[in-house]
Amino acid sequence: MGGMSYRDAGVDIDKKMAAVGGIGGLVRSTFTPGVLHDLGSFGGMFSGQFPAMKEPVLVATNDGVGTKVRAGVRAGRVRGLGHDIVNHCVDDILVQGAEPLFFLDYFASSVLDPAVFEEVIQGVAEACRNAGAALLGGETAEMPGVYQPGEFDIVGCIVGVVDKQSVWPRGVKAGDALVGVRSDGLHTNGFSLVNSLIERDDLDLDADPGSLGESLGDALLRPHRSYLPAIRAVREQIDIHGLAHITGGGIQDNLPRVLPEGVGAQVDRASWQPNAVFEFLIEQAGMQRDEAYHVFNMGCALIVIVDGEAAEDAVAALTSAGEEAWVLGRLHEGSGVTF
Amino acid sequence: MGGMSYRDAGVDIDKKMAAVGGIGGLVRSTFTPGVLHDLGSFGGMFSGQFPAMKEPVLVATNDGVGTKVRAGVRAGRVRGLGHDIVNHCVDDILVQGAEPLFFLDYFASSVLDPAVFEEVIQGVAEACRNAGAALLGGETAEMPGVYQPGEFDIVGCIVGVVDKQSVWPRGVKAGDALVGVRSDGLHTNGFSLVNSLIERDDLDLDADPGSLGESLGDALLRPHRSYLPAIRAVREQIDIHGLAHITGGGIQDNLPRVLPEGVGAQVDRASWQPNAVFEFLIEQAGMQRDEAYHVFNMGCALIVIVDGEAAEDAVAALTSAGEEAWVLGRLHEGSGVTF
Repeated sequence: MGGMSYRDAGVDIDKKMAAVGGIGGLVRSTFTPGVLHDLGSFGGMFSGQFPAMKEPVLVATNDGVGTKVRAGVRAGRVRGLGHDIVNHCVDDILVQGAEPLFFLDYFASSVLDPAVFEEVIQGVAEACRNAGAALLGGETAEMPGVYQPGEFDIVGCIVGVVDKQSVWPRGVKAGDALVGVRSDGLHTNGFSLVNSLIERDDLDLDADPGSLGESLGDALLRPHRSYLPAIRAVREQIDIHGLAHITGGGIQDNLPRVLPEGVGAQVDRASWQPNAVFEFLIEQAGMQRDEAYHVFNMGCALIVIVDGEAAEDAVAALTSAGEEAWVLGRLHEGSGVTF
Repeated sequence: MGGMSYRDAGVDIDKKMAAVGGIGGLVRSTFTPGVLHDLGSFGGMFSGQFPAMKEPVLVATNDGVGTKVRAGVRAGRVRGLGHDIVNHCVDDILVQGAEPLFFLDYFASSVLDPAVFEEVIQGVAEACRNAGAALLGGETAEMPGVYQPGEFDIVGCIVGVVDKQSVWPRGVKAGDALVGVRSDGLHTNGFSLVNSLIERDDLDLDADPGSLGESLGDALLRPHRSYLPAIRAVREQIDIHGLAHITGGGIQDNLPRVLPEGVGAQVDRASWQPNAVFEFLIEQAGMQRDEAYHVFNMGCALIVIVDGEAAEDAVAALTSAGEEAWVLGRLHEGSGVTF
């Protein structure tokens, strides 16, 4: 029986250390004044003092980007997945009014590919800088036998802060208007179906399948959009009552999470045109339209709830902030979402 | 071409929702007064007010349990993996002096097995309650094609708090004593090698291979030990200068992370006997002993650094707190770790 070393077991500690060391500059590029990185090196340290707030509330969430990672690997374009995981988390805490403080990433694969890893972390660092979130920590795991060869997972955890008096939703009521904000495509939802379709129909990611005006890969892999800059600008001008982040489950499952008891929503699907990529996927999959609205965001990834009178002002403010926005529906006494 | 639904693509949203709904009671069982769960439901909310502290510092880390998940799946015992991920994170921020505030988990697999998922989250919730960490959020992902069938990954992120004046290390210097604290076995390090060995030699996890006094599975899968209760007790009696959490890379790579410039360590390997499971693994793998000390904790998962004069008092205090402790070495002017 021969001797067995850790490298024989599929884990190359030196290669991993070199890859992790190589991203040091990227990590430092995200540091904000809250980072207390001189203090230690096991866990990341961040100031817990929020003197401008009366009652600071920490808001935290973690998530992955689902099987969008497979589409990214297949297309050989993975940097956007770094933007996806950060922006998804940023938007998830934004709906409660939180400003990002810091982010931590977890990157795992069967065998580490340093070039892929660095490309993903490039995207993570870019998106962190854009959001003002310090990349406070991260973990890189090699797990032979757990992950499929060539695939990887990227997971993120974000922590933000909001003053308790500014937490959304607040004051959502019947009569309020729903303002939709355009998505950049699928963001990170619906990719298990998309991947199955790509395999079943042998779709070419480098070609325009007909009506997209861009390659299928470009349309599918465009990163999750961060609505933080727009909402930062708009909340100075408009009294926002609540936000809903439309992810898996669509408007049907996500909007009710911010509606109080006794309030329902009427959503007019004719008020906007889904992005072309959704129409392509519906046709290619032979999917029911109703199911598509349950799986995909269908072009609306954020709903801003404002006073009924403020609807057009909100649309104008969002438009000035660089977003495509429209009045998508209205709240009424009742329950659930009707289309 | 037939129609394709999300379930055809390998993702069963209803099953996932039922499984996630089923753990609601477990999650609530971990809630502490800091949880502001009445405020919202997208991201978890936790009080950011720390009135007892002069300069609160948030300490955050994230990690997985590596390929220990494979050994757990193989043995059909996964609850301990929930303890592993929480306790590993608890110990990682403990070395900076932080008390846990909250924890978030990420559980991903090819296809969700609700029984396995619930068993793991049972372990997570138990360990969170033990540590006083609220299980503030979590994500469950089904990723067909990314994970190997039957395998899963469990990832955690913890956030704790410490007053800046109490951050470790502080005052570590030449002449200080190193006090070792016994591990409960491998904790979460070295499992890629262990898994390869199990496969290569077709080892029976249900049997004692000879000298363990328990089955191999029991020895290997014992969860990562939380040193939080012991350190909480000891720091009231002893002036601790620093802690080192001995994980992958062993004492050699982890101890230097808490040593200041100009200070080296002399560690006496003869001062303690590695747990029997390490001796078994070294012999079975035909491994070099030096490599074993680099891969495994070899029985010492925590090093407590105290004044040279306080060494025996620290051993006594740790012993009273229920730990096995011993004087393992000493710091001197110089650099690096010598054995």
